[in-house]
Amino acid sequence: MTITCLHPAYLIPVEPASQVLTGHALVMNDSLIEAILPSEEARLRYPDAIHQDLPNHALTPGFINLHGHSAMSLLRGLADDLALMDWLNHHIWPAEKAHVSDEFVFDGTSFAMAEMLRGGTTTINDMYFHHTAVARAGIASGMNTVVGCSILEFPTGYAQDAAGYLQLAEDAINEYRGQAGIGFTLAPHAPYTVADDTFRKVAAMAADKGVRIHCHIHETNDEVQGSISQYGKRPLARLAELGLLSEQLIAAHMVHTTDEDIALLAKHGVHIAHNPASNLKLASGFARVHAMQQAGINIGIGTDGAASNNKLDMMADTRLAAILAKAQSSDPTAVNAHTALRMATLDGAKALGLADRTGSLTVGKQADVIAIDLSAIETQPVFDPVSHVIYAAGREQVSHAWVRGKALLVNRELQTLDQQALLAKARWWQQRIHPQ
Amino acid sequence: MTITCLHPAYLIPVEPASQVLTGHALVMNDSLIEAILPSEEARLRYPDAIHQDLPNHALTPGFINLHGHSAMSLLRGLADDLALMDWLNHHIWPAEKAHVSDEFVFDGTSFAMAEMLRGGTTTINDMYFHHTAVARAGIASGMNTVVGCSILEFPTGYAQDAAGYLQLAEDAINEYRGQAGIGFTLAPHAPYTVADDTFRKVAAMAADKGVRIHCHIHETNDEVQGSISQYGKRPLARLAELGLLSEQLIAAHMVHTTDEDIALLAKHGVHIAHNPASNLKLASGFARVHAMQQAGINIGIGTDGAASNNKLDMMADTRLAAILAKAQSSDPTAVNAHTALRMATLDGAKALGLADRTGSLTVGKQADVIAIDLSAIETQPVFDPVSHVIYAAGREQVSHAWVRGKALLVNRELQTLDQQALLAKARWWQQRIHPQ
Repeated sequence: MTITCLHPAYLIPVEPASQVLTGHALVMNDSLIEAILPSEEARLRYPDAIHQDLPNHALTPGFINLHGHSAMSLLRGLADDLALMDWLNHHIWPAEKAHVSDEFVFDGTSFAMAEMLRGGTTTINDMYFHHTAVARAGIASGMNTVVGCSILEFPTGYAQDAAGYLQLAEDAINEYRGQAGIGFTLAPHAPYTVADDTFRKVAAMAADKGVRIHCHIHETNDEVQGSISQYGKRPLARLAELGLLSEQLIAAHMVHTTDEDIALLAKHGVHIAHNPASNLKLASGFARVHAMQQAGINIGIGTDGAASNNKLDMMADTRLAAILAKAQSSDPTAVNAHTALRMATLDGAKALGLADRTGSLTVGKQADVIAIDLSAIETQPVFDPVSHVIYAAGREQVSHAWVRGKALLVNRELQTLDQQALLAKARWWQQRIHPQ
Repeated sequence: MTITCLHPAYLIPVEPASQVLTGHALVMNDSLIEAILPSEEARLRYPDAIHQDLPNHALTPGFINLHGHSAMSLLRGLADDLALMDWLNHHIWPAEKAHVSDEFVFDGTSFAMAEMLRGGTTTINDMYFHHTAVARAGIASGMNTVVGCSILEFPTGYAQDAAGYLQLAEDAINEYRGQAGIGFTLAPHAPYTVADDTFRKVAAMAADKGVRIHCHIHETNDEVQGSISQYGKRPLARLAELGLLSEQLIAAHMVHTTDEDIALLAKHGVHIAHNPASNLKLASGFARVHAMQQAGINIGIGTDGAASNNKLDMMADTRLAAILAKAQSSDPTAVNAHTALRMATLDGAKALGLADRTGSLTVGKQADVIAIDLSAIETQPVFDPVSHVIYAAGREQVSHAWVRGKALLVNRELQTLDQQALLAKARWWQQRIHPQ
């Protein structure tokens, strides 16, 4: 067993809350965090360990991207600045219909993982098609990968109807169950694309398989109004009646909420995947993050897919979540830097049911750790390293990332993914998607 | 005279609008853009020139940061997540009172310029104290620097009263008038800190000296309500009566606007410096950017100071301006990528009265040019380079910056500023401001 002691300038564990340790080391073995203790003591107690000095760095938990469609990284910038249905009907869905396959999803997910690892993300909560390709990409990259198995009523290149999607989900879960670093959710796409009966089947299968449910909910006002027209109730009320609301549910977006919606979410312990950049870019609206947190609702942060963001940059979007919550609530003390960092890490882990394993630098948890180099002009001087991590640093300052104790990014070089090969694949897909 | 031909993958001139040239070169002499023509023709016509290939790069005008307080870079992260008056009264103003001097301003402005050049900003519209120190920093760095001479009623370490600030402004303008790359504005701080009589004197001096006026206006709702209490009218109406509204005025922030305010701004041709990150972080609110643009108002983009942002990152804030405008107006077609790029460049130049000299890649204008390397994982594949520049790329992808034909950033290395010396100065100031 290899023991590695990291000696950063600042060790920010997230748990306990609001703590910044200086002069401390994080000790990890092949997969877990073994100790956090004063640096000098670590050098004495682990004389044979690898001691890595990170003299300008903040050490934090890796980021947890709580909502994304990784493979869409190959469609980034294909179409922007359009109304949602124009964008979907005339650009995204035709491109997906023409190109999405096992190969597209493996390549696109791997490409997105390269971007995310370079930006300090160590765990993703994905939602797409071709689940086994996503799982294979997760295994190859070494990232913690929660594969969201999309379920819809309408046909795509992947399945013909809800029964087909459910079967593919079950098959993938059965095939990859127990694989280290791989988890699953059932991902009914949204209230407006999934029928009552299918939601009931999803709830039953999720309970049977012991997996969580990941669903777009209350993303746009149109969705809410459409549900009122069709079902005579808001989507959240409908899902409550169907028995979907629980601590097992991750609601992506949740932009449009009444006080009654918030009470319902809090009562059932529903988790929110807040996607601030996508919510702005698609003009979906302003989520009531501060009000939801005050009601006790757990909120993590997601980037959404690269086609609607257009970067898979948890540092940018965590900063955005923090500053947007202040303006939305007219309260500059809302979502402070420590809270924002917790949302991007531990709160994401809670949403996934993984808080016993990841999301903070805690002895016994997986060594899912990143180092952020604060020596640049952009982050000097340092009065408060947490402020810099959230408000000033860019993802290019992430120097190292470890997942389950394995170094996946070292001095900005990817270790498990072949960057040149990925770039070549991206060029190949570009020619196929949009020949020039 | 040295002729340099830049051969980028994509040449994005901003003027004409929405154009992306491929296979073209930009030819510059020691200070101006001499030609834009097909690459092959450039190699034939300028055989003795320096030909620089930029095979993965987008070439755009340098960014114009239309509102900032550069020297405050030394106070970045000193205090965050606080209510505005708590932040000012208990943190920022005491620190400024204790430390702001010629030396602080020269060092802090130089430090900020290093950050801004590394992020593709080539022109700044500053507003602070110790004007000659700002001008000297601008000359040393080579950036286009518009020095905003702050005018207040109350005493600071720089002057005792409005008459004192006006005198210092006049002295600085007289001393540095005609210096290449240096301009001035008179900068009455805000309607709530400047009396009617002083505003009249500012207007008279600005006309006399031929400089523009740069003022925080309608930043917060409290400001607007306070003016109604004190003066019986909104700040903008008061300034209109005082004769301040004109094409010579740059209104920073302009967050809170009625339709009548917008009509007044449009009628007088007032320019807006929109500061999206600062407006969110301080919980000031959501500016009605799309509505103002539809009314024909010219809007550039600013970062504000590093104490309230906390990064001087025009690429991040231009992206934010673009996506925020969509959500604020509920229109995903608002501020498209081309419009956002124009706001960050040409519209800023218009606001400063410098559109005949900078802000677009146009023959005869200054060669204020940046190259953005799109070869990274984060910006591949490339379906639309303008989308990537605005929505996907980070400032770390700015490889080169030229100002008036002089290379100030080459392969991410600063040419006129000494990065190590600046970092040492920053550490020295950190010890003075907050000894550890």
